[in-house]
Amino acid sequence: MHAIGIDIGGTKIAGALVSDQGEILREHRSPTPAGDPGAIVDVVVEMIEKLSVGEQVVAAGVAAAGFIDAAQSTVYYAPNINWRNEPFQERLSNRLNLEITIDNDANAAGWAEFRFGAGRLVSDMTMLTVGTGVGGAIVSRDHLFRGGFGAGAEIGHMRVVPNGLPCGCGARGCIEQYGSGRALLRMANEIADVRGIGNALADLRAEKGALTGEMVGQMIVAGDAGALHALRELGGWLGQACASLGAILDPQVFVFGGGVAAAGDLLLDPIREAYLAHLPARGYHPEPEFVTAELVNDAGVVGAADLARLHAETPRLGASRSEVR
Amino acid sequence: MHAIGIDIGGTKIAGALVSDQGEILREHRSPTPAGDPGAIVDVVVEMIEKLSVGEQVVAAGVAAAGFIDAAQSTVYYAPNINWRNEPFQERLSNRLNLEITIDNDANAAGWAEFRFGAGRLVSDMTMLTVGTGVGGAIVSRDHLFRGGFGAGAEIGHMRVVPNGLPCGCGARGCIEQYGSGRALLRMANEIADVRGIGNALADLRAEKGALTGEMVGQMIVAGDAGALHALRELGGWLGQACASLGAILDPQVFVFGGGVAAAGDLLLDPIREAYLAHLPARGYHPEPEFVTAELVNDAGVVGAADLARLHAETPRLGASRSEVR
Amino acid sequence: MHAIGIDIGGTKIAGALVSDQGEILREHRSPTPAGDPGAIVDVVVEMIEKLSVGEQVVAAGVAAAGFIDAAQSTVYYAPNINWRNEPFQERLSNRLNLEITIDNDANAAGWAEFRFGAGRLVSDMTMLTVGTGVGGAIVSRDHLFRGGFGAGAEIGHMRVVPNGLPCGCGARGCIEQYGSGRALLRMANEIADVRGIGNALADLRAEKGALTGEMVGQMIVAGDAGALHALRELGGWLGQACASLGAILDPQVFVFGGGVAAAGDLLLDPIREAYLAHLPARGYHPEPEFVTAELVNDAGVVGAADLARLHAETPRLGASRSEVR
Amino acid sequence: MHAIGIDIGGTKIAGALVSDQGEILREHRSPTPAGDPGAIVDVVVEMIEKLSVGEQVVAAGVAAAGFIDAAQSTVYYAPNINWRNEPFQERLSNRLNLEITIDNDANAAGWAEFRFGAGRLVSDMTMLTVGTGVGGAIVSRDHLFRGGFGAGAEIGHMRVVPNGLPCGCGARGCIEQYGSGRALLRMANEIADVRGIGNALADLRAEKGALTGEMVGQMIVAGDAGALHALRELGGWLGQACASLGAILDPQVFVFGGGVAAAGDLLLDPIREAYLAHLPARGYHPEPEFVTAELVNDAGVVGAADLARLHAETPRLGASRSEVR
Repeated sequence: MHAIGIDIGGTKIAGALVSDQGEILREHRSPTPAGDPGAIVDVVVEMIEKLSVGEQVVAAGVAAAGFIDAAQSTVYYAPNINWRNEPFQERLSNRLNLEITIDNDANAAGWAEFRFGAGRLVSDMTMLTVGTGVGGAIVSRDHLFRGGFGAGAEIGHMRVVPNGLPCGCGARGCIEQYGSGRALLRMANEIADVRGIGNALADLRAEKGALTGEMVGQMIVAGDAGALHALRELGGWLGQACASLGAILDPQVFVFGGGVAAAGDLLLDPIREAYLAHLPARGYHPEPEFVTAELVNDAGVVGAADLARLHAETPRLGASRSEVR
Repeated sequence: MHAIGIDIGGTKIAGALVSDQGEILREHRSPTPAGDPGAIVDVVVEMIEKLSVGEQVVAAGVAAAGFIDAAQSTVYYAPNINWRNEPFQERLSNRLNLEITIDNDANAAGWAEFRFGAGRLVSDMTMLTVGTGVGGAIVSRDHLFRGGFGAGAEIGHMRVVPNGLPCGCGARGCIEQYGSGRALLRMANEIADVRGIGNALADLRAEKGALTGEMVGQMIVAGDAGALHALRELGGWLGQACASLGAILDPQVFVFGGGVAAAGDLLLDPIREAYLAHLPARGYHPEPEFVTAELVNDAGVVGAADLARLHAETPRLGASRSEVR
Repeated sequence: MHAIGIDIGGTKIAGALVSDQGEILREHRSPTPAGDPGAIVDVVVEMIEKLSVGEQVVAAGVAAAGFIDAAQSTVYYAPNINWRNEPFQERLSNRLNLEITIDNDANAAGWAEFRFGAGRLVSDMTMLTVGTGVGGAIVSRDHLFRGGFGAGAEIGHMRVVPNGLPCGCGARGCIEQYGSGRALLRMANEIADVRGIGNALADLRAEKGALTGEMVGQMIVAGDAGALHALRELGGWLGQACASLGAILDPQVFVFGGGVAAAGDLLLDPIREAYLAHLPARGYHPEPEFVTAELVNDAGVVGAADLARLHAETPRLGASRSEVR
Repeated sequence: MHAIGIDIGGTKIAGALVSDQGEILREHRSPTPAGDPGAIVDVVVEMIEKLSVGEQVVAAGVAAAGFIDAAQSTVYYAPNINWRNEPFQERLSNRLNLEITIDNDANAAGWAEFRFGAGRLVSDMTMLTVGTGVGGAIVSRDHLFRGGFGAGAEIGHMRVVPNGLPCGCGARGCIEQYGSGRALLRMANEIADVRGIGNALADLRAEKGALTGEMVGQMIVAGDAGALHALRELGGWLGQACASLGAILDPQVFVFGGGVAAAGDLLLDPIREAYLAHLPARGYHPEPEFVTAELVNDAGVVGAADLARLHAETPRLGASRSEVR
């Protein structure tokens, strides 16, 4: 049976009907009516109804950036769409005759990669989504790792520098400040201040008024020494973070998604190099692989649909302590 | 039915017959014939046979410090007893008519706390064993987290200081160098160099030739300002590490075991304080509790027995990808 | 003979007639016409004329926050009064029949302490002015250390944390971000977020809307545990910085001025403690003293006057390479 | 008139008769009778006598690694030759009819560069000697900067990493651990552990048993990617340290001496790049130059001779406070 996946982004809502093999059978898109929870519910309900027409649908899963509670019902906090303590699962269930689950968008994307993409051959996977920020997803022995309060796998907020750069989360020194797309732009601006290696970036900045992530991406593709230097610095930080994550999570594969991962081996090479240089207990256990994500744009909807299907199909033999608590 | 737990330490091997309620019904101890794998096998076999006499025993679990493979059969590396790639499970199974599993000692202790001790009311727990080094155990949704290669939960080797102090694992800046009993002794020696606050420690060091961990522990109990200062510094580092671990693992409770945890609230208070000061996204999800371990000396044998029982009793419906790979 | 000292601050201009023993014989104050270099010149000229009436005056010295060139003629950059490349010495000399020198305000204050205050018994002194930012002054073998381009002794911009907090200077991790009054306020806010120790600060913040440096100062005087904790953290950073400064500058005394130094031993004790704990090559040379400044409010005008007098009275036997270059 | 310079190294003692233009007119070498202060005095006395034969000699200066007191008479601590509180100036003066001064070897080398080498056109120079360790020398307004206790300019012990690598000086995180020849060797070993870039270093290490500084130097000359990577890492640390040193000391030129400086622009380029990237208040004052030393092997004897000559020729109009204290 099919399932529906919905991915609520800051600018658009994407929905798809997804087979149990992860194939997208039908899809819809709609702008996000940001800041209006009620309007978002309307758009999602309408999209699920359209995608369901004439189909056997077992469940629908919704993914959004933010903190979701352990019962996968309430959105504690979703920065893009300005939600606080929104009982989203209940609102949707009231209007749809379908089992509904909600999940964090990085979890959904990670799960899609695990099931149908870069992680499909392993049991334990750690994914870092390197976009504007740094998202995370963890799969352990074939299960998505959610944490005791449903807020785990926030890998972007592991601290890598004591007393380091301030982070939007209120803490300092998070890997998000050293390994995200925003960090790459900052590093590119720093390189642009360095004569010689930074000349092309400096010229572009002068011409356009300011550098953007897109410009830096184009300079990387064009092989500019300054942009590549910034990318290597970014990869170095990510690889050092993976050395710590490897000690804790011990995945068979690290998957890198998000816009910056489009750089492929230009990003993966410095990650691997830094990982090996900072690895604890080197030589005493097999080394993980480092790869880029395969599903890219569809990961959110595919993962949300599949998580919803699994949730609907899992027999409830007994409550976990986390559900009865 | 009962199970047997064996805990192989650097100086002694402890064994116990353990009920399914975690009670120790009978126990034995024996010195560790260190450096001689064959002799250790003999001691363990004999101990299991003695503990089994006249009892219905479902399985035996063995815990040792070191890296165990994902199939829980081979000890890749056990520093205390100088093993490398030792097929320990097979050696024992050949001589005993009993299902045998082996596990890392920190995992065994963590599992005991989860089942019968400080973590018994939650589904997600992170334990740090603060002894000579820093060991770790992670429980997620009622399951022990082992990692893809069986070497996960090595929390002591998460890096907290870039380019920091060299660690025995070959990397630098690991929390083990800032949050272990050995780190506490180093901090106490540093404080002893500071006039005023360090006077009592300096006097003791002069009298005894050198400070030991035991002396520092006694000075903590005695309320010495210098020793308490060192303990607070240690707790500060552990609390900062917990802020990162909370973002990734999101446990409902952090449990602290090992000798240093005997300090109780004197250790927990600075941990909580530092955790709160460095917590990412503070206020957006419930806060974990910080407690000390309850089983202390028995945790290894109780956890090893219980893990063996569960392994023996779990129906094998199908192999996880991690087992077929 | 007397000299005149002028101290141009962000809100007021102070002027004084100063004896060669550092005594203030007469003084004037006037609001700063900020942002208008011409008006400031008018105020300074008028003030010098008033202070000179009926007196034998050998020279006038002017102190301002900012970068001054090596010839002590041009203000490259003065943040408070929005000057850029202002030929201030020439503008004043054109209107006054008096030798004029200009200097950085931290240098002037440091020189005053060296000549008549906390540094009067030594030949080598390092002063840190802990106000909103962190200013510095260095005296070496009885001479003010100015650097090759006149911009030395900017101690506040020594880096203490790689990849640390962003600084107003454009770099990151400067001691100014960890050891200034502004840093103290940030630390107090962080403590206010910690339950227990931070309760009184949190209550005050809730009552007043926001904490100010003045409030934190009052809480320190009142003995509040949270405010004292923040002050000790600040002192810890300053003491660690002094360990590095001691290796380079090797002063006989470290003098602490600025508003935060009013805390006296409450600030000096953690500075000394951290200095000793981080001192390189401990035990192989005499230890410096740590004291607070003595002249406080008058240091700027007294130092500016004295530097001008010395400049006027020093015979010019030959140019230093720095002047002919 | 000529002067004599003596440079006491760990393995040999070098002596030279030096003109007031810094030319070496005659020289001698002799093995160091390490560990025997009396024997060293004999060798130095004999060498000075030989070099003086038939010459008008105004003074003799002796340079040694270690801490020298402010009066330039006593060697507090000289690690190479195992001296403690050795009244070296007095011992020599008792046997020679010549004015004798003693100085730190990095100071002597720095002074030689300032007078006759890479710093001869400026008034303010900072020199870093990048050998096994990191030595420092500071010249300010044409004077050698010695510090209040004679132990200043120990630039190698400025801390660059809080809680960083342990240093031989007893502190942690000193630039000596990140910017010295020994650090370069450590970095090369780390790179040798990285597959791909480190292959050639790894092969060499396997062949020879261990890497040496000399091997790494040869690999740098040969253009090996791994060795060059290590050198760039070293240069990055040195450049970051120079950003802090520039804020404090503001030299017109940074001079790099010692064995590693033979790499020339391969070392200077990453230093300049890192300096610019971490410079406080960039754009508000002229930038220093970065150059390598010119006198190399002769710097010690030339500098020691010249410092002795200046000391002998300087009229003593009055004591500095540092001398009367």
